Amino acid sequence: MEQLDTNTLTAQLQDIWHNEIPLSKDMDLSIVSFANNQLITRASLAPNVNVHGTAFAGSLYAIQALTGWGMVHLQTQMLGLDASILIAKGNIDYSRPVDQDIIAICQFDGYQSEIESLLENGKARFDLKCAVGVGDSVASSFDGVYAVKIRT
Amino acid sequence: MEQLDTNTLTAQLQDIWHNEIPLSKDMDLSIVSFANNQLITRASLAPNVNVHGTAFAGSLYAIQALTGWGMVHLQTQMLGLDASILIAKGNIDYSRPVDQDIIAICQFDGYQSEIESLLENGKARFDLKCAVGVGDSVASSFDGVYAVKIRT
Repeated sequence: MEQLDTNTLTAQLQDIWHNEIPLSKDMDLSIVSFANNQLITRASLAPNVNVHGTAFAGSLYAIQALTGWGMVHLQTQMLGLDASILIAKGNIDYSRPVDQDIIAICQFDGYQSEIESLLENGKARFDLKCAVGVGDSVASSFDGVYAVKIRT
Repeated sequence: MEQLDTNTLTAQLQDIWHNEIPLSKDMDLSIVSFANNQLITRASLAPNVNVHGTAFAGSLYAIQALTGWGMVHLQTQMLGLDASILIAKGNIDYSRPVDQDIIAICQFDGYQSEIESLLENGKARFDLKCAVGVGDSVASSFDGVYAVKIRT
């Protein structure tokens, strides 16, 4: 598989989301940046409100689950791998309401043993964390386990 | 507050979802039935697909989180209470893909001490479970903690 620069990879990732996961478009999810193994995504508040006029818990989960999925997708692409990525379980805490556009951050550091397992056995599980902040505080924190399998 | 029959309550609940939580409409979420303290909801697969052509993990979470929220809403309404309901945390497992319309089930049994606490102190936390099945198997199971506060 051809190695591509990160701008091309993030553009492709956003196309995959919008073309193949209609809800990502309904939520207005887009990629803000991908640098230093940090993926930042954004979604407008309006399509994601709840009865309280703040961000709907389901949107906060879906956005962070997709941000984690996107991170694993980008990492496998950068390794030149074509991989199937499935979320096996997810966990989310809501500590304060989000009354503004939703910005999700996912950091990918470490994971050396998971990457070795992926390259050696063709499969691995990655436990990723994401967060959505409001001001200087964490408003919601997400933890997802992704099962990754190299396509042969 | 006036006591209403369950058909009116479920119709009102669906109106709240579709009018105040746009994503519930995007997901095509509707109420199938509410009887014997069991709430069943449904969403078409098409607006909720992922890259694998099966149900998007974020939709499975959002649908079950709303089904649990709806259950707490219905229970408080049947008690004649006007309550604010917030999800504090959620937990979900995906054990197999959902390749058909999504049917979520939430059962409300027990909770006597939580209801007493709600009536006495004006607030309580309810830990609810929901599930989405495929055939006879559970495809996804959800656990959500809802913080409920009576509006004064």
